[in-house]
Amino acid sequence: MKLIMAVVQDKDSNRLSSALIKAGFKATKLASTGGFLRSGNTTFLIGVEDNKVDDLLNIIRENCESREQLVAPVSPMGGNADSFIPHPVEVEVGGATVFVLSVDEFKRF
Amino acid sequence: MKLIMAVVQDKDSNRLSSALIKAGFKATKLASTGGFLRSGNTTFLIGVEDNKVDDLLNIIRENCESREQLVAPVSPMGGNADSFIPHPVEVEVGGATVFVLSVDEFKRF
Amino acid sequence: MKLIMAVVQDKDSNRLSSALIKAGFKATKLASTGGFLRSGNTTFLIGVEDNKVDDLLNIIRENCESREQLVAPVSPMGGNADSFIPHPVEVEVGGATVFVLSVDEFKRF
Ligand code: NI
Ligand code: NI
Ligand code: NI
Repeated sequence: MKLIMAVVQDKDSNRLSSALIKAGFKATKLASTGGFLRSGNTTFLIGVEDNKVDDLLNIIRENCESREQLVAPVSPMGGNADSFIPHPVEVEVGGATVFVLSVDEFKRF
Repeated sequence: MKLIMAVVQDKDSNRLSSALIKAGFKATKLASTGGFLRSGNTTFLIGVEDNKVDDLLNIIRENCESREQLVAPVSPMGGNADSFIPHPVEVEVGGATVFVLSVDEFKRF
Repeated sequence: MKLIMAVVQDKDSNRLSSALIKAGFKATKLASTGGFLRSGNTTFLIGVEDNKVDDLLNIIRENCESREQLVAPVSPMGGNADSFIPHPVEVEVGGATVFVLSVDEFKRF
């Protein structure tokens, strides 16, 4: 038995939850902030049999992998809006930091 | 030294806290949601000497074990309240998912 | 690779965050309450290479160590304010409870 602790961006949290449920994994979500990823993230706790760890890691990667995304820039406050030419900006979104821990004992009451 | 991570329903959280304090265990509570249990749960972090693990697991089981409970049904919205016969419904409440982890090093500053 | 879980008082949380960033450590913060320390605390998750564990523990100790602090006493409600002589009270603040866990596998996606 392993305990997976995965820190993912809030943006990807719902999608990961759905994918985990679909694959039969049970997860608990902890509200968390900052650090490993840009602020606004969720820490998943997931108990998993040893032989399912790779499946679980694949699901996390598929749903949370860091990627570039074009976002509309914010129009400059108080600037001359007429002369402002919106130019999409590439930002990095997503990403996951995952710890796999050995479980000495697992109980369900 | 072990670190116990226990996910329990909010319903049982205060009772477990009191029982832990009474038995001399120190716990930290993390707000958590979904997954292992119906939404609204609390994750307890508890540091414990190896020879006290069984005592601690017993306290968690005694205070959080999954059980059936009769609840009053919600009266049907917009229905004919006069003809509604309240019939208690059995629901499962409580339950705990517990991970026991080995601690390499424990420090108190 | 180790995972450090450190429970510290909210009071020291921002200072510890800054010190960790300055030293190049990446941390995730979980909101937590009660137990190990007086209520209002934060749980830090920090992934760290084995040879950096001592550096990290030193940073936690330096920023969170339990210490005495003089605080102004609250004036007694409904008492005779004229005869109340404010006398600073020494309280213990800070403190950290730290678990070092072995990581089986660490992934960044
Ligand atoms: Ni361009
Ligand atoms: Ni019946
Ligand atoms: Ni004095």
